[in-house]
Amino acid sequence: MRRGAIRATIPAMNPVERVRVRTIEGGRDADRDDDVAVEEPLAIQIRREGSEAGFAFVTTMRTPGNDVELAAGLLFGEGVIEGPGDVVRLAVPDTPVGKRDDNVVVATLRSAAVDRAEKLQRASVMGSACGVCGKTTIDNLIPAGRPAIADRLRVDPEILLALPRRLREKQSIFASTGGLHAAGLFTFAGELEEVREDIGRHNATDKLVGTCLLRGRIPISGGILAVSGRAGFEIVQKAVAAGIPLVASVSAPSSLAIALADAGGVTLIGFLRDRRFNVYSHRHRVAASQAPDSSG
Amino acid sequence: MRRGAIRATIPAMNPVERVRVRTIEGGRDADRDDDVAVEEPLAIQIRREGSEAGFAFVTTMRTPGNDVELAAGLLFGEGVIEGPGDVVRLAVPDTPVGKRDDNVVVATLRSAAVDRAEKLQRASVMGSACGVCGKTTIDNLIPAGRPAIADRLRVDPEILLALPRRLREKQSIFASTGGLHAAGLFTFAGELEEVREDIGRHNATDKLVGTCLLRGRIPISGGILAVSGRAGFEIVQKAVAAGIPLVASVSAPSSLAIALADAGGVTLIGFLRDRRFNVYSHRHRVAASQAPDSSG
Repeated sequence: MRRGAIRATIPAMNPVERVRVRTIEGGRDADRDDDVAVEEPLAIQIRREGSEAGFAFVTTMRTPGNDVELAAGLLFGEGVIEGPGDVVRLAVPDTPVGKRDDNVVVATLRSAAVDRAEKLQRASVMGSACGVCGKTTIDNLIPAGRPAIADRLRVDPEILLALPRRLREKQSIFASTGGLHAAGLFTFAGELEEVREDIGRHNATDKLVGTCLLRGRIPISGGILAVSGRAGFEIVQKAVAAGIPLVASVSAPSSLAIALADAGGVTLIGFLRDRRFNVYSHRHRVAASQAPDSSG
Repeated sequence: MRRGAIRATIPAMNPVERVRVRTIEGGRDADRDDDVAVEEPLAIQIRREGSEAGFAFVTTMRTPGNDVELAAGLLFGEGVIEGPGDVVRLAVPDTPVGKRDDNVVVATLRSAAVDRAEKLQRASVMGSACGVCGKTTIDNLIPAGRPAIADRLRVDPEILLALPRRLREKQSIFASTGGLHAAGLFTFAGELEEVREDIGRHNATDKLVGTCLLRGRIPISGGILAVSGRAGFEIVQKAVAAGIPLVASVSAPSSLAIALADAGGVTLIGFLRDRRFNVYSHRHRVAASQAPDSSG
């Protein structure tokens, strides 16, 4: 890859992680290995040319790979750098013994660009609306005073398989746009309690949890959270905070979503569509309500 | 809707907006009305119980509707409120003459919750990694020193129709996860120049723009940006900043993405799949390279 005059250290990182997953299809369970997209925080630090002092500019969740380019593009998109001339060096710092910091990019910039970055930081309001900023470890991602996650409930696979259709039916008033995500709250018996929609999955989930909160229904200990898209970590994080024991997504989970569900006591289900699904964590909550009839 | 003891003012807002769109399918153009999901900023302000003074806590992009619940859920997810007892009142402020502020929710909270919100604000780094925080108008969304968008290039509909397949082919190394978005840079002749992938569309786009920046290729005046998912405003914003004249998405655009493309001089294409697509702005760049053969 040609890179012009800018010095940059490019680490080779893995965007994919192998996990053990249980697939349920046609009444059968099978454990197998599967690949999930890695989701990890990248901290972008800014240093002024000719100085050793730096400051943390932003932390963003991303899939590892092309991190230097990501930092360049983000700093450009934010107006910190206006062109390659503002960049002295972009690099992943050397790794001290016993410490992994390939989740950091240090941007050494010309003074004018550093001034713009500092001004942006002062002007900004808190930006964790997207749930990611400044939170960098699994422990940090789990709210300190979170409710205990209920562990007695079990859900029949057949009930899970019916959720996407029920969510879509309820969502159909806005189906005309093709552009809205849905977050639905179901009971473990499969009854739909509430649906909220938004262009952002995280907003739809916030609307749903907020509705429950305003009704005095936190923790949502008997609930299933079904989302119309992928399961990123922020969806699982919101479930953990609200005490929701099971999250079901019609699409792929991220590596961090799985790790967070595992640590937070949440059953995470993905690819819930076409009469099948995968279970990524706390599988014990998925259980047929009676033994399958082997005579048929 | 039952709401418990919390006082809340709920406005009725429209999550859908009707736009004029040109659909190209089977070599035919048709202008028609279509619905798109509305995307607008919501500012959440916090007031201390018994005080009139407030402060801006966060601005998030969302689809209007259930805004009070969204504010409640977001404040809960961030750990500002720990339960309904922390909320005195959540309300959309009364509208002064000539001013629309149904994009604001004022959260009047108990003192302990306000203390937590202030602490969070002080601890946070800049959070506009997701591209949304603190930017509230179309003018603010267009970078001040942006490059002029090239206007001489035209693209043949057949070339556009081939982009999603080419993007998927190039993306196939990570297809195993089902969890990665792709952003691809094409020429107006349909040649794929570069692909970047990430769990987030905005990151994939930042990686692509950052790659070009590091190569000294900004503005990307001859490029088409193709993205694997929806076209939210932040994708169009990054295109405007980079001088990219055409953005093509395989899925739905938001209302704000259309408005921003219109104001920024970018041709915005959506639902590019199954041998058809919609053009939402600056249609003149889409033109058959020769008159269709009507003899066939």
